[in-house]
Amino acid sequence: MIPLMSALLTDLYQLTMLHAYFSRGMRDTAVFELFFRKLSPGRNFMVAAGLEQALEFLERLRFTPEELDWVEKCGKFPRGFADHLAKLHFTGEVHALPEGTVFFPDEPVLRVTAPLPEAQLVETRLINLVHFETLVATKAARCVLAAPGKLLVDFGLRRAHGAEAGLLAARAAYLAGFTGTATALAAPRLGIPVFGTMAHSFVQAHDDEAAALAHFAECYPAGTTLLIDTYDTEIAARKVVALAATLKERGIRVKGVRLDSGDLAALARSVRRILDEGGLADATIFASGNLDEYRLRELASAGAPIDGFGIGTSLVTSSDAPFLDAVYKLQEYGGRARRKRSSGKATWPGRKQVFRHYDGAGRFGHDVVTVEGDAQAGEPLLVSVMKNGRRLHLPESLEAIRARAAAQLAKLPDALRTLESSAHTYRVAIAPALRGLAEKVDRMEGEVPALFK
Amino acid sequence: MIPLMSALLTDLYQLTMLHAYFSRGMRDTAVFELFFRKLSPGRNFMVAAGLEQALEFLERLRFTPEELDWVEKCGKFPRGFADHLAKLHFTGEVHALPEGTVFFPDEPVLRVTAPLPEAQLVETRLINLVHFETLVATKAARCVLAAPGKLLVDFGLRRAHGAEAGLLAARAAYLAGFTGTATALAAPRLGIPVFGTMAHSFVQAHDDEAAALAHFAECYPAGTTLLIDTYDTEIAARKVVALAATLKERGIRVKGVRLDSGDLAALARSVRRILDEGGLADATIFASGNLDEYRLRELASAGAPIDGFGIGTSLVTSSDAPFLDAVYKLQEYGGRARRKRSSGKATWPGRKQVFRHYDGAGRFGHDVVTVEGDAQAGEPLLVSVMKNGRRLHLPESLEAIRARAAAQLAKLPDALRTLESSAHTYRVAIAPALRGLAEKVDRMEGEVPALFK
Repeated sequence: MIPLMSALLTDLYQLTMLHAYFSRGMRDTAVFELFFRKLSPGRNFMVAAGLEQALEFLERLRFTPEELDWVEKCGKFPRGFADHLAKLHFTGEVHALPEGTVFFPDEPVLRVTAPLPEAQLVETRLINLVHFETLVATKAARCVLAAPGKLLVDFGLRRAHGAEAGLLAARAAYLAGFTGTATALAAPRLGIPVFGTMAHSFVQAHDDEAAALAHFAECYPAGTTLLIDTYDTEIAARKVVALAATLKERGIRVKGVRLDSGDLAALARSVRRILDEGGLADATIFASGNLDEYRLRELASAGAPIDGFGIGTSLVTSSDAPFLDAVYKLQEYGGRARRKRSSGKATWPGRKQVFRHYDGAGRFGHDVVTVEGDAQAGEPLLVSVMKNGRRLHLPESLEAIRARAAAQLAKLPDALRTLESSAHTYRVAIAPALRGLAEKVDRMEGEVPALFK
Repeated sequence: MIPLMSALLTDLYQLTMLHAYFSRGMRDTAVFELFFRKLSPGRNFMVAAGLEQALEFLERLRFTPEELDWVEKCGKFPRGFADHLAKLHFTGEVHALPEGTVFFPDEPVLRVTAPLPEAQLVETRLINLVHFETLVATKAARCVLAAPGKLLVDFGLRRAHGAEAGLLAARAAYLAGFTGTATALAAPRLGIPVFGTMAHSFVQAHDDEAAALAHFAECYPAGTTLLIDTYDTEIAARKVVALAATLKERGIRVKGVRLDSGDLAALARSVRRILDEGGLADATIFASGNLDEYRLRELASAGAPIDGFGIGTSLVTSSDAPFLDAVYKLQEYGGRARRKRSSGKATWPGRKQVFRHYDGAGRFGHDVVTVEGDAQAGEPLLVSVMKNGRRLHLPESLEAIRARAAAQLAKLPDALRTLESSAHTYRVAIAPALRGLAEKVDRMEGEVPALFK
């Protein structure tokens, strides 16, 4: 069977277009840019993620004999098309925002410069990867802003949209500042710290809750977190106190407890009191259950004595805004800048660079988008990461990306740190050189003039 | 590298619990049920999907030497745990709703009966698969109800949450009544009809729109669909008319056009007129661009002359409700029924069966959930699909599942066919035998009584 990570994991129209390109020898250099047209509700910024997976995809892109066999026999293409595909691999150039970079609408996150068929074919999977990781990194960054200094753990695998979403959500959340994930595979695959202790079923599988808690603690003498809401949270907290005394004599430590239901702020307070009075002042309280950045903010502002949070479904599905307006558009072909002028979907043409300007306090001030080569003040954000189909650098470590994201979030102006859409939209200016190019493209194409803000 | 489809694609706590189970020899038979606690906003029913992938997962579940090596060396488990995992594979029994079955909250979709460690370990991935496909099948069924008789195509791969979500969304949408998908891989992997023609970039890569359209049509002489909104939709429609006349002489057919932006209803009307007046009365109009079931209903009720729709992001992310409240709970262990009584999350204990009753017109009347073995009238919905870790039947064909889903949707009472939450909730009665069991469990556990509706 053809594997999931197949060159055929793309839209059929990429293949139908490729046949047309091959049939006319349209192999000139094309420039496509991947960008996000607007912010989703509540978002004031986005955090770039997914570049590592995108580059891996480009490096490995090949059609296998089995895939070519399907192309030959599917009845959609004339003979000979598969021979073109057999020779295809990615030979182009990539510029991109480093992962963890905070960015805004209309700013290219990734630019592909390659012979037209190659640059076209990769559209679907590049968006698929960069969109999803950026979506989750952005959501995770909001959680980090809502609960600064707290231990945040991704609990989302079970309700993530499939296997890859589960794994990549762990990555995106971690790079944006989460402490780790419950997804075991993220440790060997990505080196992410993994967390996890027990579920309700463990307690239920024992005839007695106290016996279940004791059994589990004995299995992890160096310290574990006990789940205490299977029946009654406060009663279970007292059982933990009683248990801890006995266990201590045997050298077994109770590290903390987890709450997963009920009024978390109120329960955390009463459980904290029970633990403190029971001599377990150093035991931590971990909370989970339908949490998102809004609930985190509530719990933080209520001063709930919670040390860490497990955040699942809302994180990995970005449930309040489960997609971003990510697109990948042709900006230049055969040396000539191009733009799409569809109603409401017009794009800025040409190869672009983004320059960032800082305010006096070192926070983000505004960005300028212009054509590549237009000398501008400010910090250029897009960097060259791939040439001739090969990476220019070793993969960045997740730790380095995570440090960048943290540094970037620290530079966010206050107006953008809220969980609601800010009245002060971050300014992304279009430089005169880019406006000029857009006008030139419109004049050359000589058709209906596009409306630009 | 450990592959994505790994036994470690699970929550770490499954492994920490397994170690505890092994350490005490807790290997008695456990019964877990996967069910959905409530309907998401706007939903009046759900469509079961994902069983095929769930059974594949159970059949193949093994720890590879590389995975065991990580378990040994990760520092989280004592020596010897990996030896237990090395021997583990799924030997249990599965009962389930056949895919395509319409179901409601509190009804088990899948029941696992197996030695506790096996039944516990599989929780995360079973939910991950069944939740996602059910989510998308349910969303797709809503689109089918909103636009009966229209050609519906999944366009969502690029904004699906990762690779597997893209592929499985195509499957879930197809089984719920979509005509096909744009995801090429769905054809060789799943046998799903694939659709796709051209993107805006194709038009932009040519210096002239008419030339681009002609070039594409020439590549697909048997008939293709031309995208006409890159610059100005009505002007492009006239170009298609002019082109079609010339092409016809050369035996090349224009099958239809696609609109992807603007006021789709108004544009479809004017394009229809242009095509009809231009002698292309048999050319179809296909529309795409930010569509969902609500927009489909609007376009249908506006009588927009659109023959088919491409539905992307909203379908594959189920964007208005990107998750369902899917859980997998221990219902019995060692011959004794169990229940969780956490605040707001209490469950019905024991092994269950669902009986469906029909009204006089053959539509769904109400369901009864009871304990297995309780003789009831009505149609039992859960069937046995796996024993001793092996399937009892060959995989069902997608066509058979699709036919079942269509038959089920035809039996939906009118009150449940709306896109908004119906005032008439479908009745799912809890049989006296099940209530009795719940009370018995509470008495035996002798702790805080749970509150049931």
